[in-house]
Amino acid sequence: MSQIDSKAVFEYLQGLQARIIESVELVDGKTFLHDGWQRPEGGGGNSCMLEEGNVFERAGIGFSHVIGSKLPPAASVAHPEAAGRQWEAMGVSLVFHPRNPYVPNVHMNVRFFVAKAPNKKDISSQHLGASQGGEADFSQTAQQVRQEKYNEANTGTAPNDDEDIWWFGGGMDLTPYYGFKEDCIHFHRTNKEALSTFGDAYYPQFKKQCDEYFHLKHRNEPRGIGGVFFDDFNALGFEQSFALLRAVGDAFTQAYLPIVQRRKDTTYGEQERDFQQYRRGRYVEFNLVFDRGTLFGLQSNGRTESILLSMPPTVKWRYDWKPEAGSAEATLMTDFLIDKDWV
Amino acid sequence: MSQIDSKAVFEYLQGLQARIIESVELVDGKTFLHDGWQRPEGGGGNSCMLEEGNVFERAGIGFSHVIGSKLPPAASVAHPEAAGRQWEAMGVSLVFHPRNPYVPNVHMNVRFFVAKAPNKKDISSQHLGASQGGEADFSQTAQQVRQEKYNEANTGTAPNDDEDIWWFGGGMDLTPYYGFKEDCIHFHRTNKEALSTFGDAYYPQFKKQCDEYFHLKHRNEPRGIGGVFFDDFNALGFEQSFALLRAVGDAFTQAYLPIVQRRKDTTYGEQERDFQQYRRGRYVEFNLVFDRGTLFGLQSNGRTESILLSMPPTVKWRYDWKPEAGSAEATLMTDFLIDKDWV
Repeated sequence: MSQIDSKAVFEYLQGLQARIIESVELVDGKTFLHDGWQRPEGGGGNSCMLEEGNVFERAGIGFSHVIGSKLPPAASVAHPEAAGRQWEAMGVSLVFHPRNPYVPNVHMNVRFFVAKAPNKKDISSQHLGASQGGEADFSQTAQQVRQEKYNEANTGTAPNDDEDIWWFGGGMDLTPYYGFKEDCIHFHRTNKEALSTFGDAYYPQFKKQCDEYFHLKHRNEPRGIGGVFFDDFNALGFEQSFALLRAVGDAFTQAYLPIVQRRKDTTYGEQERDFQQYRRGRYVEFNLVFDRGTLFGLQSNGRTESILLSMPPTVKWRYDWKPEAGSAEATLMTDFLIDKDWV
Repeated sequence: MSQIDSKAVFEYLQGLQARIIESVELVDGKTFLHDGWQRPEGGGGNSCMLEEGNVFERAGIGFSHVIGSKLPPAASVAHPEAAGRQWEAMGVSLVFHPRNPYVPNVHMNVRFFVAKAPNKKDISSQHLGASQGGEADFSQTAQQVRQEKYNEANTGTAPNDDEDIWWFGGGMDLTPYYGFKEDCIHFHRTNKEALSTFGDAYYPQFKKQCDEYFHLKHRNEPRGIGGVFFDDFNALGFEQSFALLRAVGDAFTQAYLPIVQRRKDTTYGEQERDFQQYRRGRYVEFNLVFDRGTLFGLQSNGRTESILLSMPPTVKWRYDWKPEAGSAEATLMTDFLIDKDWV
C-alpha cells in the first residue's frame, strides 16, 4: 500500500470544519460557539455549535482526533491483524437541525483510521499537540459483537509489521420533514457527481450502504431519503482514497446549502412545526438505539456533549400518531421515505 | 417451591392497571385511551395513554402478557436450567410525565415470569384468550451478553423437570425537576412501609438496587431520587413473594398521587418549563441507551408504540448547559440527585 499522510488528513479535516462553519454562518447570520477539549487518554477535539440561529435551531459540527497505544481486537473488525497496534482516529461529524420544517435535516461525517506498523516509528503527533495515552474503554457489548466478527475474519493471515493499516469512512444523508423531489434529486446528484471521478460504481454502492445503515428497524422506516455511506475504504491506495474522502467532504455545502436557501423562507404554521418535532423523535431513536458511533461513544467514556451534538433542539412524542391520508405529512412516508433511485 | 398461580397474578395485574387509571383520571379530569393489541407470536396487551391532560402531559400505562413455546438460553440468565421451556411473562409498566415542572415524573413496573416444568401440562392460557405462538425474536446483542452470563452461571446443576421456575420483579422511582425534601421522604417512606411487612432488609436492598440501575453512566448522574427496584425475586415462596409484589404495586398511588396533589397548582413560568424539558432529555437518554426492557423490546420485534409509552411528550437538548450556581435548578443536582437515605 502507498505511504499514508496522517498530517495531511488532519489538516484537511480541520480545514473542512472551518469552511463548513464559514458557509453556514453566511447563511444563518449567527456565529458558532467553538469549544476545544482534550481527551485525558490522548487526543482531543473542537466541538462547534450554533444554537437558536436564524436558520438553524441547532447545528453541531465536531472535529475529533483520538490516539491510542494499543488497539483492542474489538475495534479492528475488518482488519484483525491491526489488534495491539498503536492507532489514530480522526473525523469531522455534523448534524444540522433547521428551524423551518420545510428545510431538511442533514448529517455528514468523514473520518480516517490508521493502525501504525510496529516496525516503523511511533505515530508522530507533534502536529497535533496531543498526548499518547492509554487505550479507550471499549464496551463489553460492542466488544462481543466485534469479537465474533474478528473470529470469523481471523483466518490466520500473518500481519505485515512493516505496513500501516488504514482506511477512510464517511458519507452524508438528508432527512426531510416535507418532501420535494428537486431537493432529493439535487442532493443525490451532487453526491453522484462528486464520486464519478473515481468510477461509476461507487455512487450506487455507497447509496445502497446508506439506505441499509440509516434504517430504523423497530419502525421499519428509513431515516430519510438517504445519500451515500462508506466505511473501511482504502481500495484506491492512500492518495486516491483520500481524494475520494475529500470529494465527499467538499461536496457537502454544495449538496445541502442550496436546498436550505430554497426553503428557508417558506411560510409555515403550528402544524408543520409540530410534525417536524414529532419526526425529530425518529432521529433521536435512531441515534440513541442504533447509531454505532453514538453508542460506542456513550459506552466508551467519550465526551457526552460532543457525541450528542446530533440531538435535536426540541422533540415531541405522541402515541401511535398517523398523518391524515393524502396530506403532505402522509406523502413524506409514501413518496419520499422509500427505496428509490433519485438520479 | 410452592405451587404458583399465574391466573391470580394475571388478574391482579389487570386490576392494578385499572385501579391506577381510575385514580389518575380522578386527579386529571381527562380519561385514558385504551388500546388493546395481540402479539402474532402469542399473547398481547392493553396500552393505555392519557395525552394533553390537565395535570399529565403524557401518562402511559401498559399491561402486557407474552407467551413463548421455547425459552432461549439468552433469556434465562439467573436460571439457565429454564432454557428450552415453555414460558410466560406478564407485567404492568407506567411512566407519567406531568405538565407542571414542580410535579415529579414517576415510573413503576411490576412483572412476573414463569418457565413451565416440562413434566407438567402446558401453560393453560384459556383465561388469557391468547395463542401460544413461537418464541420471541431475541436480538443477537442481548443474546450474546446473556449467553456469557449463562455460561458463567451454568454450573451443571440438573434441572428439576417437575417444578416451575418463576420470579417476580419490579419497583418504582421518582424523577423530580425541582426538589422538595418532603416529597422525597414521602415517596421513600411509602415504599419502605409497604415492604416492612416482609422484614426490614428489603427496603435498603431494593433502594440500593434502584440507585444502581437508574444511573446514567455517560453523564455520571442518577436519573432521579430513586425508589425501589428488585428482580429475580422468589425468596419468600410464591404466596409471600406475590404478596410482596402486590405490596409494591398497591403502594404506587399512595406514594405518588399525594405529591401530585401538593404540587400540581404551583405557579411556574417559561424558565421552569424549559428546565423540565431539558431534564426530560436525560430520561430519553436513559431509556433508549440503557434501559434493558426498552432495548430488549426494540431489538426483539416488540410493539414499538407500547415500548415507547415512556417517552416524554416534549424534550429539549442544548449544548453543555449548566444551571446558575445556587439556583433551584442547580439545587436539584447538588441536594437531590445524590446518593442519600431519604428515610
